Order: sequence, then C-alpha cells, then structure tokens
Amino acid sequence: MGTKSFMDQDFLLSTETAKKLYHDWAERMPVLDYHCHINPEEIALDRKFDNITQVWLKGDHYKWRQMRANGVAEEYITGRASDREKFQKWAETLSMAVGNPLYYWSHLELKRYFGYDGYLNGDTAEEVWNLCNEKLKEDSMSVRNLIRRYRVTLLCTTDDPSDDLKWHQAIAADPYCELKVLPAFRPDRAMNLEKLNYRAYLSWLGETVGMEIDSFERLKEALRKRMDYFQSMGCRAADHGLEYVPFAPASDREIERIFQKRLSEPEALPGREDLDRFRTAFLLFCGGEYSRRGWAMQLHYGCKRNNNRRMYEKLGADTGFDCIGGRNSVDALADFMNCLECRDELPKTIVYSLNPNDDTAIGTVIGCFQDSGSGIPGKIQQGSAWWFNDNKTGMTAQMTSLANQGILGNFIGMLTDSRSFVSYTRHEYFRRILCDLLGGWVENGEYPEDWKTLERIVKGICYNNAVEYFGFPVPKEG
Amino acid sequence: MGTKSFMDQDFLLSTETAKKLYHDWAERMPVLDYHCHINPEEIALDRKFDNITQVWLKGDHYKWRQMRANGVAEEYITGRASDREKFQKWAETLSMAVGNPLYYWSHLELKRYFGYDGYLNGDTAEEVWNLCNEKLKEDSMSVRNLIRRYRVTLLCTTDDPSDDLKWHQAIAADPYCELKVLPAFRPDRAMNLEKLNYRAYLSWLGETVGMEIDSFERLKEALRKRMDYFQSMGCRAADHGLEYVPFAPASDREIERIFQKRLSEPEALPGREDLDRFRTAFLLFCGGEYSRRGWAMQLHYGCKRNNNRRMYEKLGADTGFDCIGGRNSVDALADFMNCLECRDELPKTIVYSLNPNDDTAIGTVIGCFQDSGSGIPGKIQQGSAWWFNDNKTGMTAQMTSLANQGILGNFIGMLTDSRSFVSYTRHEYFRRILCDLLGGWVENGEYPEDWKTLERIVKGICYNNAVEYFGFPVPKEG
Amino acid sequence: MGTKSFMDQDFLLSTETAKKLYHDWAERMPVLDYHCHINPEEIALDRKFDNITQVWLKGDHYKWRQMRANGVAEEYITGRASDREKFQKWAETLSMAVGNPLYYWSHLELKRYFGYDGYLNGDTAEEVWNLCNEKLKEDSMSVRNLIRRYRVTLLCTTDDPSDDLKWHQAIAADPYCELKVLPAFRPDRAMNLEKLNYRAYLSWLGETVGMEIDSFERLKEALRKRMDYFQSMGCRAADHGLEYVPFAPASDREIERIFQKRLSEPEALPGREDLDRFRTAFLLFCGGEYSRRGWAMQLHYGCKRNNNRRMYEKLGADTGFDCIGGRNSVDALADFMNCLECRDELPKTIVYSLNPNDDTAIGTVIGCFQDSGSGIPGKIQQGSAWWFNDNKTGMTAQMTSLANQGILGNFIGMLTDSRSFVSYTRHEYFRRILCDLLGGWVENGEYPEDWKTLERIVKGICYNNAVEYFGFPVPKEG
Repeated sequence: MGTKSFMDQDFLLSTETAKKLYHDWAERMPVLDYHCHINPEEIALDRKFDNITQVWLKGDHYKWRQMRANGVAEEYITGRASDREKFQKWAETLSMAVGNPLYYWSHLELKRYFGYDGYLNGDTAEEVWNLCNEKLKEDSMSVRNLIRRYRVTLLCTTDDPSDDLKWHQAIAADPYCELKVLPAFRPDRAMNLEKLNYRAYLSWLGETVGMEIDSFERLKEALRKRMDYFQSMGCRAADHGLEYVPFAPASDREIERIFQKRLSEPEALPGREDLDRFRTAFLLFCGGEYSRRGWAMQLHYGCKRNNNRRMYEKLGADTGFDCIGGRNSVDALADFMNCLECRDELPKTIVYSLNPNDDTAIGTVIGCFQDSGSGIPGKIQQGSAWWFNDNKTGMTAQMTSLANQGILGNFIGMLTDSRSFVSYTRHEYFRRILCDLLGGWVENGEYPEDWKTLERIVKGICYNNAVEYFGFPVPKEG
Repeated sequence: MGTKSFMDQDFLLSTETAKKLYHDWAERMPVLDYHCHINPEEIALDRKFDNITQVWLKGDHYKWRQMRANGVAEEYITGRASDREKFQKWAETLSMAVGNPLYYWSHLELKRYFGYDGYLNGDTAEEVWNLCNEKLKEDSMSVRNLIRRYRVTLLCTTDDPSDDLKWHQAIAADPYCELKVLPAFRPDRAMNLEKLNYRAYLSWLGETVGMEIDSFERLKEALRKRMDYFQSMGCRAADHGLEYVPFAPASDREIERIFQKRLSEPEALPGREDLDRFRTAFLLFCGGEYSRRGWAMQLHYGCKRNNNRRMYEKLGADTGFDCIGGRNSVDALADFMNCLECRDELPKTIVYSLNPNDDTAIGTVIGCFQDSGSGIPGKIQQGSAWWFNDNKTGMTAQMTSLANQGILGNFIGMLTDSRSFVSYTRHEYFRRILCDLLGGWVENGEYPEDWKTLERIVKGICYNNAVEYFGFPVPKEG
Repeated sequence: MGTKSFMDQDFLLSTETAKKLYHDWAERMPVLDYHCHINPEEIALDRKFDNITQVWLKGDHYKWRQMRANGVAEEYITGRASDREKFQKWAETLSMAVGNPLYYWSHLELKRYFGYDGYLNGDTAEEVWNLCNEKLKEDSMSVRNLIRRYRVTLLCTTDDPSDDLKWHQAIAADPYCELKVLPAFRPDRAMNLEKLNYRAYLSWLGETVGMEIDSFERLKEALRKRMDYFQSMGCRAADHGLEYVPFAPASDREIERIFQKRLSEPEALPGREDLDRFRTAFLLFCGGEYSRRGWAMQLHYGCKRNNNRRMYEKLGADTGFDCIGGRNSVDALADFMNCLECRDELPKTIVYSLNPNDDTAIGTVIGCFQDSGSGIPGKIQQGSAWWFNDNKTGMTAQMTSLANQGILGNFIGMLTDSRSFVSYTRHEYFRRILCDLLGGWVENGEYPEDWKTLERIVKGICYNNAVEYFGFPVPKEG
C-alpha cells in the first residue's frame, strides 16, 4: 500500500471505483446549498476581502475554538491584535490540529481558491499570508466569483420572518448575477417566548405586517403573511433551531393563556412546561403551514448554547461556546411527527440532531412517516452530518446509518451551514467521502457494477435529489 | 487491492484467514434458530408459494418501509396492486438501497434458493420474476426444503401461553420432518395490563387452563401450568418484548391491588407507575420460574411501536411503523438482574436492546451477573444485533463490543427473528461477518494462529454454543 | 496484504509511517503515569512476587470478570484454590477471549517482562507457569525494576486526604529510587455524605488535622490543610469518582443545613436532592482550591457500582461488579464548569466518562472552557479512554473524537489507572494505536509529511504534554 500525497487529486478516494465515481460524476456536478448563513448583502455588493484573516477568521467560531484550545490569548482571536498576528496564531494552531476537519477545509481552500499546494504551519505562515493577500486583490476573488468556483447554482440563506429580503430582491434583479439566492424562513425569535426581548420582537414583526400582535392567533396570522411573502420570493424551506424537540400538546385556550401571560406580565417568564406547550403549538402550526405550501421543514436540535456565561457577556452568541445537549429527543420527535401526520399536515421534513448517537434512532423514526401517498422519494430526511459532526467520522456514520435504515440513494446530500464564501470546499469534501463509501462497497462486492444506477445515485446525492426534493427552479443535471 | 465480484463465494471475507475460517468451518455448520416468528402451521403443512411476491412481500414490513421511503404508493405495498406490480416496485426500490441489509439478504436469497447470480433492479425485474416463479413450482421449494437448504436442525417459534401448540405436536409426530420445532414462551399479553383487551385475554388464558383468573396469584398459577405444558413440548426459552426495562419493586399486596383494580374498573387504565410496578413483579415472577426450569429468558427492549397512528388504524401492528425508543434502560436492567440474583432466581438471560448505543453498557451489566456458581459459560448473554441493527455495522459493533467486554468465544450467535423461510441466508451473512472479524484479528497479529482454539470458537458461535447453552436435544457438531 | 505475526514488533502498526512514528519516537519516550492506583508501600519496599498468579490475579477484577464469564467457579477466582489451579483457569479463559484487551495486555506482559513469545491457553499454561515463576525469582523482577522496564519517570498514586503519605516520604528519601512517586488528592470519602461510615470518616480526618469537623466550613478548612500538605509532597492533581456529575447550586446556609442534619441525625440519610446540592457545593469548593494551587481536577463519572449485592456482601467493592450508568451528565458538566468559570476558579480539568457515547459531547463541552487567558494549551482535557473503554476500539474512538472536536496535538495521553506493576504495557499498547492513527492519516494524504510537527505531536502525546500540563518536576524529552 503506497503512500498517497497530501490531499492530492485522489484525496480520500481509496479505491479505483471511488476515483471513477468522483472524477466522472461527483466532481462535475454543480452545487446546491439549501441551508447556509451567508449574508446576501455581500453577494449583492459582490464584496472583496483585504486579507486572508478577513476571509478566514472574521466570525468563524469553529476556528476560534481551536485557537482557544491551543492556549492562544483572546487578544489574538477576537481582540485587537493585527490581522497578521491573528493569522500567525491560527497557522500555529492548525498544524497541531491533526485529524480536525478544519485541517482539511483550510487546505482545500488554500488549494482550490489560492492555488497553494503546501501546508500551513507557523513556519509557512508568512509565505501563505503574502500569497493569499496578493491573490485576494484579483477580481476572481470577489464573493460571487468564489461562489462560481464551485458552480453553485442556488443557495438558501437563513432569514427572520421580519426580514424585508431587500438584498434577495437586489440579487434577483441583477442581470450580472446568475446565482439564485432564495430566502429560508427561520421563525425562532417568534417562538422563543422566554427571551427577554420577546415583546419587542413582536412589535417589530407586527410593524412589518402592519398589525398589532396581541394574541397567538394574530401571531399566526402575521407569520402566514410573512410566509406568503417569502413564498413570493422563492422560499421553499423553513428552519427551526431547538435545544430539544418538545412535544406537549395543549388546547388552543391553554396556548392563548400562556401567550397572554407573557404579554401582560413581562417580568414573569414562563416555566418549562408552559414553554414546551407553546413551542409544540408553534411548531405544529408551522408544520401545517409548510405542508400546505410544499415547503420543507428543517429541525435542527440538540444544541446547548452559550455555556460560558463570562465569554457570552463579553462576545455575545455564536462565538464558540456551544455544546451538544444531553436531552434525548427521539420519543418527542416521533410523537410530534405523528401528530402532524394524523392531521394530514406533515410537511417534507429534514431532521438534524447535534448528537451523533441519534443517527440510528432518527433513521428508524423517519422510516415511520415516509407517507407513500405523497409520491416524494425520501419525504422525511435525516440531514447531513451537522456542525460538530461535519467531518469524515460524522459524515461516514450518518451515511452508513442512512444506508442501513433507509434508501441512501434518495438522500438530498450536503449543505454548508456556513457564513463563509469559501466553504464550498466542504461539498467537495463530502462528495469524496460519499464516493469513497460507495466505491468501497462496489470493490468489496457489496454492490454490483450497475453503473447506470450508481450514476443516478451519485448525481442524485450530489445535486439532483435536492433540486427535485425542494422543487427549486433550476434544472437537474444529466 | 483488486475488485471483488459482486457477492461471490468470498463475499465479506477480506483476508485469507477469514476465508479459511468460513469455508473450512463456519459454512459447514448446521443452523440452530433459537428465536424466530415462523408460523409452525406452514411447516406442518409444508406449504409452497405461488410467486416470489408471496415469498418476499407478504408481511415483510422491513421491505414495506423501504418501498415507502422510495415514494411508492401504498397500493403497491399492502394494497390491491397485482403481485407482479408489487414486485416491480420492490425491484426499483431495492436498487436505490445501496448499503442496506435488504440488498444483501435479497441477493443472497436469489443466489442460494433461486440460483440467480445477477442483480435485481427495475430492468431485470421481469427476468427475475419469471425465473423465481418457475423455480417455486419445484418441490425443492417447499417450506421444509427451504429450511433444509441451510441445514436447520432446530428452530424455536414464538408462542403465546394460551397457544395449544397443536402444530408443534403435528410436526413432532411427522416422521418425514426431521426438523425440531420447539415453542418459546412469550407471555407479553399476560403482562400488558394497559391493553384494552386485557380482561378478554385473561378469560381466554383461563379457559385454556380450566380456571378463573381472578387474582395475580391465579394468573401466576395459570402461567406456571402453561410453562409446564410448554416444557413438556420441549420449550427451553422464553421471550419478553418491552418498550423499556422496568424496575419498580412493590409488595405482593400492592401488586394484587393494581391487578384487582384493572379487573374491577375496566375503564380506568393504570398509570405509568402502577404499570411499572406490575411489570416488574410479572418479570420477576417469570424470571424465577424460568430459573427453576433451566430456561433462558430473552429480554427484547427499546422499541417504541406503532408511531404512525394513521397507518396503525389502517394496517394494524407490525406493519413498518416502529422505531427505537429514547428511554435508557441500563440502570433498571442492572437492578432487575440484581434483584433476581439476590433471590438466587436469575435464569440464563439474553439481553437485546434496539438501541445500538447500549452495546458497551450492556456488556458491562451482563459482566456483573455471570454467576460463576452456575458453571454455564456466558450465562448472561447479549443477544445478536437485533432488527434495525441486523446489518454489518450493527453485527460488527455488537461482536466487537462483546469481545472488548467479555468472552466472545462463548457467544451463542445468530438468530433470524423472522417470519420468512428464506431468511436463513442471514445466518450466512452473520457467519461471514464473524469470520471476517476473527480473520482480520489473526492477520493483523492480534490473535495467534491457534487453529485449535479458533476452530472451537468459530464452530461454537455458529452452532455448538447455542446447543449447549439452551440444552437443546440435538448433538453438537465436531 | 500479508499476514503479520502474532504481536510482533510492528503489532498494530499497519503502515510504514506508523512504524516510523512508533519506533523512531513513541517507543523511545519515557512514561509518565499521572493516574494510577499503585500501592506506594510496595514501591518503597521494592516487593517481589512468588508466582505469576500473585502478579496477575491478586486484586485484578478485570480478569475475575472474564473468568466468571467463562463459567469458572468462584473457588478458582477469589477462593481457596491453589495459585496453580487459578492460573490454569485463567489460561483457559484467556484463550476464549479473542479480541479482548486482556488478551493483548497479558501477552505484552509475557513478552516484555518474561520473554515469552508464545501464546497462553490451557495447553501452554504449565510451560508459562514454570517460565514466569523462574523469572520472578530474579532481582530484575522486583517492583521497581518492573517499573524501570518502561522508563517510568514519575507516577501519581491515588490517596485519601487523611493519608499520612509516609510511603511517599520513604520513597522520596530513598537514594536508590530515582522514580518520583507523587500523591494525588482523592477526597471522595469526604463528599459521600450518604455512606454509613461518613461520621466516622470525619472523625478520622479531623484527627489527622487536629481539629473537630463539626461544620461544612470546618470540613473545608480541614481539606485545605490537607491540600497544603499534599502540595508540599509534590501533589499536582486531584481526582473525583462520581456516579454522575451533579449540578444543583444552593446557598451556603442550605449546604450547612444539609451537613448538620447528617451529623445530628445519623439514621436519616439525605435524599437525592440534598445529596446533589451537597456534592455540587463540595466539588465547587474543591475546584476553586485546585485552581488556586494550579492543580488539575480529574472527574471520573458514569460508573454504577456494586450491582451484584450478593457478591458485594461476599467480596466487597472493586471485585468486578460495576457497570456503566445510564444517567447523562453532559448538561450538568457544562453548567458546573460554567459556574467555576464565572467565579474565575475553573482549574485545569480532565473529564473522563465511562460511557463511550459521551465522547463527542465531551469534546464539545471542553471546547467551551479552554479559557485563552490561561495560556495553557488544552487546559480542559478529555481523559484517555477509561476502564471498560481501555481497548483499541475505545482509544481509537476517543482520539478520533478529540481530533474531530479539538487539538489532538495537545492531548496529555495515557495513564494506567491500574494497581499492577506490569501494566505499563498499556502505554505501549496506547502508543501503537496512536501512531497507527497518525500514520494512517499521513499515508492517506490527510496530513502532510511535516515530520517536525509530527515529532512534536507524537512526543507530546506520549510524554511531554503531561510534563508541561501538570508542571511535574521532570524534564521534557527532546
């Protein structure tokens, strides 16, 4: 067994069949990023970057965590050190992070966007800094061109219902932008009754729709209006971020009581039971509306956020202090889906748990609600390995679990879940892992050389399945 | 590393040692299926089948789930479409299910029973349909002959205490049936106090034993009588299907109170706490009785059933709408076994959790109760990877965990847990995975070429350990 | 792929790079055993052993469990059978335990300490018995020389606060013992309010410090004094054994109330809620004190102990009847660490869960508290795979998880957690697995041939990281 060169063209492809699947098909497919956190303004303005620290280290809490774990002072992470100094600390950190997905992503980004084939560490940092910054001056390194590099045809941002989507409008109206940028509906702030600024949020949302939101009924009405607006802007998917899946059914009157109490007694935050009831009602309402609109409902759960209060007070949310939560959501997930199914209101649903131990159980839950009446292959999906699991271990486990429990061929595949314009390398990373898995099975005699079906499966998971599943306005690739 | 042909003679055997272990020993051992759901009537009558859809798609909810996940309409699954149409939909589904155990099982069945060496997909479905149906006309394809193909010497069905076991009697009396078909005792219906028809069940059971069951004491008496009858019919094992393992000890008086309340107030179903108390008492009673009889107690837990109420109302139970439950049973399992151990009433026990995450913990629990006084190697067993885990991933994980935590060499091995007469291919699948695991260790220098012990281990896990463990009336194989 | 000989020099090293990493660097590093249960008296007296059963089977409940699982009668395990007979039963058991870590450890011990290159089973037991016992007569087989075989420079025992550490003093004063033997502070008995002998323990501890412990304040004062004493003896680490991580903050007054109640009402053991409150307060106090002293706090949790009451009454604790507990500690762990962090009192912390399913979640929790202000790389660590996970599966999973979630290069590596003087083979076992993992990544193109960094990482994980992390008085190795 000969040594492979560092991240060469056959990176992660350990069999001849894997290479064939990847180079003949997977590599050639466009990208459809159905869930990300990209700021559409930057696409509209086709932003450029001053230096590699701007590209890599602004707002990327994945990298911040690793720097902290390497003993780097906060000064060099989110503090006032220079961009060059921060880059140095990052380079030194990265070289110790053997086996970490950031190692692969970062080097794929250096290769694909910057043409750098070496490796980054404390010694090479200066060379890489200069090379990247020189390159970033080129027009080919604007946001849109970075996205074009991986042939992204369409991406979905993540948007609050109160968002006016003006940047989406600007992009849609721009004849020089062939990329489709669609909104996705993320109404977490309308659900999170326990937040201190909940009432302020309602006012804001109310203003957007021109009505006073003084009851849960009115909230639902407002959300329906915003869904209609999002729909008119091409929205095909919604998303919910949950610590756990609640399932505590309650009467409409009970829900209204909880809601009214929150409005009238600003100091008295609801208890956990009332919160669960309200969230359940909220999610059931949303599910029904999505179902009617043909949207896909994404459920992201299992995250315990802002665990380090000292740092939260200093830096706010999404700064690298979240972890996997301990509560098991499987039973509630099944009951929640059953409740919608019984009302004939279960939408296409994509389930993501942050806990990788949930893979098998999720595979068994989604298998209970595939509703053969819909005619949609894989109506209920387990989403691609998410966040802390977005690495070879997690992706391989998730796809192996999907294969064991359901129809891997119907999987809608990878998304970036990222704020970064260079993170489309993660689709490449994913596709290599997918092809290695499939290729390994073929070479191990576990799947026949049925090339026609293999082509359909590879192209489907890379791109076509998502086009069809969401009903996006882009053509499938032959 | 050359490509292996699709599922050839060395399927899943990746080292020379694995091939040797399999072909020299594992492949040549008979099969002992100590837990299945075969209908003994069909053996007694030596049933034959009209077509491959009858063999494959009648009652097989594993396959139904996959068809639903492929967007197939229920009409073509459990509905009124023709057998040929159903087969077509299944063939199309299967080809997308790359990596799924059904892919392997189905093709092993095509190879071993029907002599078909190609692969099934939408294009080959017609050819396979004709070939299989032609073959099914042969006498060699009767139920008994299908079972003979894998040299099954003995199988245990799964039977309610009230069953008269007349088909078992018929088989035992049939001089042309060399196969031993023994009952296994499954008293779930006598435990499930919360079921609407519980009282009707008690009447039925009471009629069987000729007594009125008007107290828990009388229920125990009735069950003891049935155990004696089952014993006389060769029964050596019992089985319990549980959502989770309960452990809530209570006094006899308390249990009698709960039982009486259920009898006298048919409308008032017991609450969860009372149910747990009753189930605990029921299981402790059973454990003691099994211990006295030398039976093995099987505990199958971790399943949340009938999650899709809409489909349950349409199709009933066991139709493909079950999932892994979220409740952790490890602590209760340890406490339950301790309670029996303290009474010196812990029987041989086989533990199966539907949640694969439980593997390691179960390995540690069973290690606490191996009771060296019994002289039985592996008195407490973790059962083979079950249901949703009955695939290469699950089997490899379960056996690796067994090896890490205990004595793999004492494992009693595979069972089918199936209603199907062609599912003995799963024993072949299991044996290949076992031999690949052991062979890999030898070739990796992790176990010596101690052929004598390896032969004992392979033959033991494939067959001999189960013969000895249960004390079945068949000889071990040399 | 050729067969490797049984446990040869390249055991577990499957690539050329793995061999290079191991033989050039890992194999040559000394050992630092920062957590074990060795009895310092035996080092002070430089004990020798009569026979191999004395070395292997006295007090080793890992081996006892396997013998029980093989059906061996207790007579031959902890009973009165002769040492030769016990050895025979163990040899027979071991040969069936294919894939078990004891198989590797035992044979590594036979190879490295006894020069025996065969394999042990029932047939070879006599030969091995004679060979080992002959060898044990040599001076090279005294306790100190066994430890020297693996170049152990320093080890930390596990000691109760009341311990006088006289054997540590004796060793420190012995000019012929170059090995550093430091105490580690394990105050479980001072925390475990629910134990029947808790008050007696307080008296004993009070006597040690010359004060009456009649309040929680006084208990804290006593513990501080003992910490100071341990510190003067070189202590750099503390350890806590927990069934689960508690987090139930309460006021000082509340804690004092719970404590006083325990003292004044010996019959009334505290309930679970009060216990959790007390334990939380106790652990928060300890954390703060450790933080001030620069000690590392080890948290070992997830063990449910003494499950078999019948055997517990016969043999006592630590005799092979423990299992992994079912309670999830992740949320409480995050909240506990946050509480200390907010007080600026979070010490260096090493987290060990007995449940391997916790790997990923722990990786995400520790990433929230790496406090870049400390300048300590990897201030919060996940400890090496522990107890039931101390095998190739567990170690590989733990290191892969570390790599995925954080900076593997900062890992402080292996410990023995053992009572045995020959268990340093486990460091060899660990290092082979580490090098195989790293070497595999390099040869798979997942890490470059950056030999300088690889050398730093390998030497760091094997030895240097622990020296630096704990601040032990031994030099790093170049």
